[in-house]
Amino acid sequence: MEIMTLQTNQRNQFVDITDKIREVIKKFKVIDGHIVIYSPHTTSGITINENADPNVLTDMQKKLNTMVPPHENYTHLEGNSDSHIKSTLVGNSVQIIVENGQLMLGTWQGIFFCEFDGPRRREIWIKLFT
Amino acid sequence: MEIMTLQTNQRNQFVDITDKIREVIKKFKVIDGHIVIYSPHTTSGITINENADPNVLTDMQKKLNTMVPPHENYTHLEGNSDSHIKSTLVGNSVQIIVENGQLMLGTWQGIFFCEFDGPRRREIWIKLFT
Amino acid sequence: MEIMTLQTNQRNQFVDITDKIREVIKKFKVIDGHIVIYSPHTTSGITINENADPNVLTDMQKKLNTMVPPHENYTHLEGNSDSHIKSTLVGNSVQIIVENGQLMLGTWQGIFFCEFDGPRRREIWIKLFT
Repeated sequence: MEIMTLQTNQRNQFVDITDKIREVIKKFKVIDGHIVIYSPHTTSGITINENADPNVLTDMQKKLNTMVPPHENYTHLEGNSDSHIKSTLVGNSVQIIVENGQLMLGTWQGIFFCEFDGPRRREIWIKLFT
Repeated sequence: MEIMTLQTNQRNQFVDITDKIREVIKKFKVIDGHIVIYSPHTTSGITINENADPNVLTDMQKKLNTMVPPHENYTHLEGNSDSHIKSTLVGNSVQIIVENGQLMLGTWQGIFFCEFDGPRRREIWIKLFT
Repeated sequence: MEIMTLQTNQRNQFVDITDKIREVIKKFKVIDGHIVIYSPHTTSGITINENADPNVLTDMQKKLNTMVPPHENYTHLEGNSDSHIKSTLVGNSVQIIVENGQLMLGTWQGIFFCEFDGPRRREIWIKLFT
């Protein structure tokens, strides 16, 4: 298992990790299989979405904030129930097919770490299967 | 990796792909493993849900449209921010266990390609692992 | 494939299944790989989230009920469209990395079966891959 670390600097932030995942695959010279990209946290997510116009991510964060506002009548006293709920809605892992040593992403797809309770130091766990 | 193509004909449309996935498994004669069903697009999803009453899918599309309306103060100029957001909420891939050459779906489960920005020609990428 | 059964006793209920998944891994003595945890139902989900303060789960259920209320103008006559919609939003399976025979969960992560249409007798399907 590979561990990638990153530092977020906003409460809600999407970080493009596509290039770093490609480096992992290159390092292991995996030819054929799939890769699991997993967040070990409970207030963040991993998603695959558009890598071209950053406004897509802005719109997504804004909509998630409207659907799950930070301040409601939550009972969890740490004040981050919204972050936990977003984590479950988005999901904490993705899987991608690997063929001929290539990460099989669609033309417009990028892989994003979704911070919902930053700024924090975060880990992403990555494992390749053949 | 197998590539399945399909043509959608509405902006929002759920297409049952269960039978086509079963054909893929039959073709490869995989006995034991799992299958990854992956959409390489950023405005569609893949989900597993009820295969009996099509009203379930109608209700789901209607609710998703209420939660993420097509027209809001989005900044992405292509006019399909709602489609991208739904894609992340639903997810762009599923995995299913395969045993004794059979796709292990529950009694009422079907596999659906979820179009959120049609009509479009779409691909679905499928890979079997043993 | 291992089949775990459980009985839920409320309409909406999150059941912590982490310890039972650890038992499955111990039983099979898998050293390195990943585990797929799959709900074969269409009105339930599987998620990974905080295992410490149960209020997080309470807040999550409450928010899901606000986003997808049980009674709206649904067309599906069984009266559980909300349960189907929640199932697709949360997702019906998770995957977790296994290393050195250990389930690789983050410090605060637990695995939860999410009942959205109980009380019911439910199954969870589990398969390990090396």
